[in-house]
Amino acid sequence: MPANDYFAAIQPIKFEGPETENELAYRYYDKDRVVLGKRMEDHLRFAVCMWHTFCWQGSDVFGPGTFHRPWQAHAHSGEAAAAKREIAFDFIKRLGVPFYAFHDVDVMEEGKTTAEYGRNFQTAVDHLEQLQVDSGVKLLWGTANLFSDPRYMAGAATSPFPEVYAWGAMQVRAALEATHRLGGANYVLWGGREGYETLHNTDLKRELDNFGRFLSLVVEHKHKIGFTGTILIEPKPFEPTKHQYDFDTATVYGFLKRYGLEDEVKVNIEANHATLASHTFEHEIATAGALGIFGSIDANRGDPQNGWDTDQFPNSVEELTLANLEIIRAGGFTTGGFNFDAKVRRQSIDAEDLFHGHVGAIDVVAKGLLNAARLIEDGRIDQWKAERYAGWNEGLGQEIAGLDLAGIADLAIERDLDPKPRSGRQERIENLINRLA
Amino acid sequence: MPANDYFAAIQPIKFEGPETENELAYRYYDKDRVVLGKRMEDHLRFAVCMWHTFCWQGSDVFGPGTFHRPWQAHAHSGEAAAAKREIAFDFIKRLGVPFYAFHDVDVMEEGKTTAEYGRNFQTAVDHLEQLQVDSGVKLLWGTANLFSDPRYMAGAATSPFPEVYAWGAMQVRAALEATHRLGGANYVLWGGREGYETLHNTDLKRELDNFGRFLSLVVEHKHKIGFTGTILIEPKPFEPTKHQYDFDTATVYGFLKRYGLEDEVKVNIEANHATLASHTFEHEIATAGALGIFGSIDANRGDPQNGWDTDQFPNSVEELTLANLEIIRAGGFTTGGFNFDAKVRRQSIDAEDLFHGHVGAIDVVAKGLLNAARLIEDGRIDQWKAERYAGWNEGLGQEIAGLDLAGIADLAIERDLDPKPRSGRQERIENLINRLA
Amino acid sequence: MPANDYFAAIQPIKFEGPETENELAYRYYDKDRVVLGKRMEDHLRFAVCMWHTFCWQGSDVFGPGTFHRPWQAHAHSGEAAAAKREIAFDFIKRLGVPFYAFHDVDVMEEGKTTAEYGRNFQTAVDHLEQLQVDSGVKLLWGTANLFSDPRYMAGAATSPFPEVYAWGAMQVRAALEATHRLGGANYVLWGGREGYETLHNTDLKRELDNFGRFLSLVVEHKHKIGFTGTILIEPKPFEPTKHQYDFDTATVYGFLKRYGLEDEVKVNIEANHATLASHTFEHEIATAGALGIFGSIDANRGDPQNGWDTDQFPNSVEELTLANLEIIRAGGFTTGGFNFDAKVRRQSIDAEDLFHGHVGAIDVVAKGLLNAARLIEDGRIDQWKAERYAGWNEGLGQEIAGLDLAGIADLAIERDLDPKPRSGRQERIENLINRLA
Amino acid sequence: MPANDYFAAIQPIKFEGPETENELAYRYYDKDRVVLGKRMEDHLRFAVCMWHTFCWQGSDVFGPGTFHRPWQAHAHSGEAAAAKREIAFDFIKRLGVPFYAFHDVDVMEEGKTTAEYGRNFQTAVDHLEQLQVDSGVKLLWGTANLFSDPRYMAGAATSPFPEVYAWGAMQVRAALEATHRLGGANYVLWGGREGYETLHNTDLKRELDNFGRFLSLVVEHKHKIGFTGTILIEPKPFEPTKHQYDFDTATVYGFLKRYGLEDEVKVNIEANHATLASHTFEHEIATAGALGIFGSIDANRGDPQNGWDTDQFPNSVEELTLANLEIIRAGGFTTGGFNFDAKVRRQSIDAEDLFHGHVGAIDVVAKGLLNAARLIEDGRIDQWKAERYAGWNEGLGQEIAGLDLAGIADLAIERDLDPKPRSGRQERIENLINRLA
Repeated sequence: MPANDYFAAIQPIKFEGPETENELAYRYYDKDRVVLGKRMEDHLRFAVCMWHTFCWQGSDVFGPGTFHRPWQAHAHSGEAAAAKREIAFDFIKRLGVPFYAFHDVDVMEEGKTTAEYGRNFQTAVDHLEQLQVDSGVKLLWGTANLFSDPRYMAGAATSPFPEVYAWGAMQVRAALEATHRLGGANYVLWGGREGYETLHNTDLKRELDNFGRFLSLVVEHKHKIGFTGTILIEPKPFEPTKHQYDFDTATVYGFLKRYGLEDEVKVNIEANHATLASHTFEHEIATAGALGIFGSIDANRGDPQNGWDTDQFPNSVEELTLANLEIIRAGGFTTGGFNFDAKVRRQSIDAEDLFHGHVGAIDVVAKGLLNAARLIEDGRIDQWKAERYAGWNEGLGQEIAGLDLAGIADLAIERDLDPKPRSGRQERIENLINRLA
Repeated sequence: MPANDYFAAIQPIKFEGPETENELAYRYYDKDRVVLGKRMEDHLRFAVCMWHTFCWQGSDVFGPGTFHRPWQAHAHSGEAAAAKREIAFDFIKRLGVPFYAFHDVDVMEEGKTTAEYGRNFQTAVDHLEQLQVDSGVKLLWGTANLFSDPRYMAGAATSPFPEVYAWGAMQVRAALEATHRLGGANYVLWGGREGYETLHNTDLKRELDNFGRFLSLVVEHKHKIGFTGTILIEPKPFEPTKHQYDFDTATVYGFLKRYGLEDEVKVNIEANHATLASHTFEHEIATAGALGIFGSIDANRGDPQNGWDTDQFPNSVEELTLANLEIIRAGGFTTGGFNFDAKVRRQSIDAEDLFHGHVGAIDVVAKGLLNAARLIEDGRIDQWKAERYAGWNEGLGQEIAGLDLAGIADLAIERDLDPKPRSGRQERIENLINRLA
Repeated sequence: MPANDYFAAIQPIKFEGPETENELAYRYYDKDRVVLGKRMEDHLRFAVCMWHTFCWQGSDVFGPGTFHRPWQAHAHSGEAAAAKREIAFDFIKRLGVPFYAFHDVDVMEEGKTTAEYGRNFQTAVDHLEQLQVDSGVKLLWGTANLFSDPRYMAGAATSPFPEVYAWGAMQVRAALEATHRLGGANYVLWGGREGYETLHNTDLKRELDNFGRFLSLVVEHKHKIGFTGTILIEPKPFEPTKHQYDFDTATVYGFLKRYGLEDEVKVNIEANHATLASHTFEHEIATAGALGIFGSIDANRGDPQNGWDTDQFPNSVEELTLANLEIIRAGGFTTGGFNFDAKVRRQSIDAEDLFHGHVGAIDVVAKGLLNAARLIEDGRIDQWKAERYAGWNEGLGQEIAGLDLAGIADLAIERDLDPKPRSGRQERIENLINRLA
Repeated sequence: MPANDYFAAIQPIKFEGPETENELAYRYYDKDRVVLGKRMEDHLRFAVCMWHTFCWQGSDVFGPGTFHRPWQAHAHSGEAAAAKREIAFDFIKRLGVPFYAFHDVDVMEEGKTTAEYGRNFQTAVDHLEQLQVDSGVKLLWGTANLFSDPRYMAGAATSPFPEVYAWGAMQVRAALEATHRLGGANYVLWGGREGYETLHNTDLKRELDNFGRFLSLVVEHKHKIGFTGTILIEPKPFEPTKHQYDFDTATVYGFLKRYGLEDEVKVNIEANHATLASHTFEHEIATAGALGIFGSIDANRGDPQNGWDTDQFPNSVEELTLANLEIIRAGGFTTGGFNFDAKVRRQSIDAEDLFHGHVGAIDVVAKGLLNAARLIEDGRIDQWKAERYAGWNEGLGQEIAGLDLAGIADLAIERDLDPKPRSGRQERIENLINRLA
C-alpha cells in the first residue's frame, strides 16, 4: 500500500453535535461556534505534531516499534521524509485543524554533516512551504531537536563541549529561520538534555550561564531576521536527564529574569510535564499567567501512577475544564495554541487509532472550553473570589498599602485586631464546577 | 520529677574518637579540629531547634502525644514556657553545640490578643537573653510562627484578609526585633500556609504580590533597626498546603528577582523539603550556590518512600558527604549553620532518645564534612570537571563567546564540526567518592 | 448555641433533578430510581462516618482545630459524646442516607481503664441503639480504633507487647459485639499502626503471624456470637507507619491465603489509599473482584500531587464512573456500601460546608453509577473485550487448555505460528466512555 | 578493532585491599575471605548480565545508542551474536566473578520464525556450553525475553491471543531446557508485559488465571526434565506496562498461593523495582524471607527522584549493608546470587566504563556484606529486638497463645491491663549501624 493511501478510508472529520453516533465526528468542536466572543477555532488553535504522530514507530525502552506505517520502513531516507510530509498534511486536512508543529529532524532526511543537514533541511522546508500553500494548514511552531543525536548526549546549549554548542546553534538558526519563512506563530525550545545526570561531572553555574547566553542569542537573532512570533521555553523537570534546568514555569521565570529575558520569552506548558513536576496542569497555566509568561500548550496527559512521560491524549473533560478556565483567565492564546504532543498507545497500531486519539482529544478540549465559558459566564466563582479579597480594596487593606512593617504592626496592636475566620468554601465551589460543567 | 532534672542522667557529650564504645560521645565531631583551614565548629555551626525538640509532644495525624515530657503538661502556661526555656539550654549545653533557633510561639506563654502576645513574648525574650549570657549559647536564627494559629488557616502574608496580614506583620516585627536583640545571625521566614488549597478560591497574582511586598517590608525594617543578620526564606513544595509558593530554591530565586530582593534574601534549605520537591538535598545547595543565594541548612531527612515531611535526624554519611561538598563549593556558611529541624520518632519517648538523635546526626554531618574535605583535597573530581569544560577557556570556546547566533552557526558549517563524544565517567567518579569517603 | 441546633438552618436534602438551582439538593441521587434493576439507594448504600465529620476538629500537623463545633468544646466528656451522637443522627437524617459508620472511641466518653472503657462504650451503644430506632438510620459498619491511643504507638495486633495486644483484643471484642447488637452489616479492621517504622526494631515474621492469628480469632468470635455481617480489612500502604502490612488488595489477599482466611474476610477499599499505593481506585476494585474479596468502599480522594492521605470528598464524576463500573463488574455491593471517609477542608468551617461536602459527593457517586450503567447497557466495551479474548474459547485456545508446556511449544513449532498483532483500541474505548458518560 | 580485543587494555581485576590506589582493583571483594563461616564468593555469587552490559547500545526514549561497541554494528546477525558471546566471557573472566545470566534473545542471532528461533538459539547454546567449559564461568540463571518482540505487545502468558501464548511457551521451554543443559542454578520469569495498559480492554481475571496456569506448566516441565534449579519470579510494579501483575513480593506471594505454587517458586528481587513499588530494597528481601520465598537478587539502584527504572550500578554501601543484613537473616543465598542488572550511563561510552561500573558495584556489595557481618557478630541489634518481643515467650504472651478472643479480652479486663510504653530506640539503633558499618 502506498503511503499516501494510508488514511484513505477515513472521511474528513465533521462537527455533528453531541448526539451523533459517529465515532469519528466532533461532538463539541464546532470551529465556527462563538464562545466568549471568539470562534472556537481561534480560541483553541489546535495543532498536530510531526514527531509522535508520524515519526514515532511504537518503540519503548523494552521493545522496538509495532506500527510499521508504510513511510517508516526506511525512516532516514529522503523518500521516507517526503512521504511523511505528504501523509502528515493529508492527515491534518482530514482532521480539519489549522496548525502543525515540527522539529527539524522530524521532517527531513537525516544529515550527518553540517552540509548534509543544511541541504536536507532546505529540501524539507521547500516542500513544507508548498504543502502549506496547497492545504491552508499553518505552522504553530517549529523547533530544533538538540537531544536525540548522540552528539547531544551531554546537552546542547549546556554541553561541556563548544563543538556541540556550535552544532546546536547551527540547527537552531536553521529551524528558527525556517519557522520564520513558513510563517510560524512561535518558536519553541525544549531542552531535552539541558540538565545533568550527576552533579559530579557538571559545572552547574557555567551550564546555566551558557544556557542563558544561548537563549539571548536566539532572541537577538529573532529580531535580526524580523521574526515576529513568540519564543517559547517548554519546562520539564526530568527525563531523559536526572534533572532538567527548565524544571517548571516558576523556575523558567527565574531563569528569564536572571538573563533579562522575561519580556522576550514565554512558556509552552505541557500537561504531562506539569504533573511530573508535582503540579497540576492548571497550576502551571495560572502561574504563567500571574507571571506574564503564558505562551502555548502541549496537550497530553500523564498517568497519575507512572513516573515518566506517557504523553497520552487528553481524555479528561474535568481536567481540561480547569485548564481552559486558567487559559481564559491568563488572557487566552495570542500566538499560542493547543498542540497535541501525544502518542497513541503502542498497541494502537491501526491507521484509524491516530484519528481516534486526535478526535477524542479535540472534543475533550472543546468541551472543556465550553464548560469553562459557562463558569465564566455564571460568574459566581469569580464573584466569591472577589468578595474574599475585598478587604484589600478598602479600609484596612488600603491603609496597609501605605504603611511600613512597623506601621502595620502598630496598627494591629492599637486596634487589637482579632481576625474572624471565614470559610474557604472549597467543597461548595467544587460542587458548583461539577454543576455547571 | 521536676523538668530541670530531665536530662540529669546524661553527661556532657565529648569527642572521644572513632573507636569509642560510648554511644553518647562524638566519634567525628571534634569542634576544634581544623578542616580545610577552619575549626569544625565554625564550619558546621550546629543549632538545636526549640519546636521539634522541646515543644512537639509526639502527636501525629492519627494520634496524640506520647512523650509526656514534664514541661509539656500544661503546654500553654507561662510556667511551662519558662521550664521549657530552661531545659532547652540545659540540653544544648550538655550537647555542646553553639546555637539554637526558635519561633516566637515556641518559647512563650500563649498570647491570644496582640497585647498578650507582646507581653508574653517580651517575658520570654528577657529570659532567653539571660540564658544566652549564662550559657554562652547563641542564636542561629529566630522566626515567627504564622501557620499554626487558626487565624492563619488561609495564609499570613498571602491571606485574603488584611487583618490577618496585619497580625502577621505584628508577629514578624516582634520576632525580628527579638532576633536582633538576641544577636541572632539570621532571621528565617518559612511560609507554612503561604500557598493555596485550591486555585478556585485563590487570587494567585494578588497573593504573590502581597507576599513580595511583605518580604520587602521585612527587609526594609531589618535595615531600619540595624539588624545585620541575613534574611532567609525556607522553600517547601507543599504540606500543609496543596501548593506552597516557595516551592524550591529556583522558585524562590525567581520570586526574589521579581521583587528586586535577590541581593537581600537567601535560602534556608531543608533536606526533607528538597526531596519532597523532587530534588536531591545537594541539588538545592548547588542551585543556591550557583544563584548566589545560599544561606543556611535545616538538617533532617525524609523517608524516600513516604510523601510527607518526616523530619528525621540525618543518618546517612553518604548523603551528608555530598551536601557538605556542595556547601564548601558554595563558599561555606557565612551567617548560616546546620539547624537540626528534626524529630525523634513518636516511639522514641525517653529523654536519652533526644540525645541519641542529635549525637548521631552531629557525627553524621561531621563525618560528611571530613569526607567532603578529603574529596576537595584529593582534587581529582574538580580536576576532571575542569578538564571536561576546558574547551570553553580556549580556541572554539573563546571564539563562541564573541559571536552571535549566526556567527556560531556559520563557524560550525565552515569548519564542518563533527564533535567526538567523550565519556562522562559517572561510574568512575562515583567509585572515587566511595573510595575516598 | 446548643449543639442540637447546629444544623437547624439546613432543610432536609431532596432530589430535585439535574436542572435545579438549589445547591443543597440532589441532582442525580434519586434513591428510588431503578438502575440496572435495583434502586439507587440499594446500589450505593451511602454511609456517613462519625470520625472525620463529627470528631475531627480541623487540626493538621501544622496547627490545631479551626472548626469549634459546639459539641467539640470538651471533646472527651460524656456530655460531648452524647451531643455528638445526637447531632450526627440529626445530620444523617437531613442528608437522607441510610447508614453510618463508627470507631468505638468516636462515639464514647474516653475510657482510660479497661473498666471505664467498657462502661462508657456500653453507654454509647445503648444510646446509638435508641437513635437507630428513632431515625431508621442503620449501621454500615463498626470498628475499633487501635491506633490513636499512645499504648498503640508500636501497633496493636502487631505490637511487640502482649499487654497491648490484649487491650486491642478487648476493644475489638467490644466493638464487634456492639456492631452485632446494632445490626451492623460489616465489621472493619484498619490496621493504622500495624506495620513498622524501621525494620531494625521489628520482628517482621512474628508480627505477621500475630496479625494473622488476631484476625483468625476475630473470625472465630464472629461465628461464635452469630454475627452474620462481613469482616473487612482496609488496605493502606503507609501513613502513619513507614510501611503498613495491609499495603494493598493484592497484599491482603496473600495475607488471607497465608492464614486460610480468604473465604472469611473481604476488603474495604479506600480511594485515597489506593492511589497512595500507586494504583487507581478502580484497579483495587477490579483486583478485589477478580480475587473474590470485594467488600466495601471508603469513598474519598487524594490529591494527585500530595503524598499523604488528604481524605477529600469525591468530586470527579470521571473517576466515579470507572469505580462504579468495576463495582458492578465485581457483582455490586452485598453487605458493603459507600462510606464517606472524607473530611471537609480545614478552612471549611461552617456547618453548611459539611452538607456541601456530602451532597456534592453523593451526586458525584450517583452520576458515576448512572454513567456506568449506561456503559454496561450500551455493551460495546464488554463486547469488544469478549471479542479480544475470543480465541481462548475456540480452536487453539481450547487446545492449549489441554496441553502441557512441551505440547504447547511443539504445537507452536509444528504450525509455525506467526501471531498477527491487533490494535488494543485504547483511545477508541476511552472516547466511547467519554461519549456515553 | 576486532571485538575480541575490546577489553584488551584491562588487566584482570584483583583484590588489593582498602588502601590500593588502583581504581580497577577490589578493595573489599576478596573472594576467598571467610565471612560468617563462608567464602565471600559463595556468599555473594556475583553474575554479569548479558543484556545491559553487552546488548544495550546506549539508547533511551529520547535518542539512539551512543556506545558503538564493535559487536553491536549488525546486532541481529549471527556473527554479532557469536562475537558478543566471546567478548562477554572475556569480560567476565577479567572481572573474576563466577556467574553470568542471559535471556534467549541476548545471546542469539534473531529468529523470526519458530524454526529459525530454534536453530539460532541452539547454535548459541552450543557455543555458550563451550565457553563455560573453557572459562569456568557458570550460569546463575537463564530466562526468555517475552516482552521485546512486537508479538508480545499485549503480554505473553497474559496475552489475549492464544498464538502469542504458544510462542511464549515455545521460548520458555527452549530457555528452560537450555538453562538445564548449561547447569544453570535458577530459571527466572520477569513478566515485562504481563500486566495492562488499561482495564477497559483487559480481562483481569482471565489473564491472572492464564498466568497462573503458565507458571504451573513451567514448574511441571522443570520436574519432567529434571531441572533442580529454582524457578524465580521477578516482581516489578509497572513499566513498560501501566500496571504489572507481579507488583511486589507480597503480591507475588498471593499469586503463588492462589495457584498452589508457593513451595515451587521464589522471587528474584530487583532493587530498583522495589523502590518503584514504594518499598525499600531491604523491605522486599525481609518480606520474601518472612514468607519463605527469598530467591535471588538483581542488583542495581534507581534514582530516588526519577520515577522509572534507571538500572544504575549499586553505589551506596549504606543501602547494601541493610540489604546484605536481610539476606543473611533470610538464610543467605542457596541457588541465588547478586546479578548486576545494571547499565552504565548513556554517556559512559568507553570500554573501561563497563569495568568501573562492575568493579565499584562489586566492592559496594562486598563492603555491605562485611558491615552486615559486623552487625550480626556484634549482636546488639538482634538482642534488643529479642528483648523487645520477649513478652511473647513468657507469662501473658504464652497465655494469649492459648486463648480465644473472648479469653484474651476477659484477661485484659480482669487484670486491668495498663501497658507501659517503651521506647522504640530507633535513633539509637540507627547510630549503632553507622557506628559499626
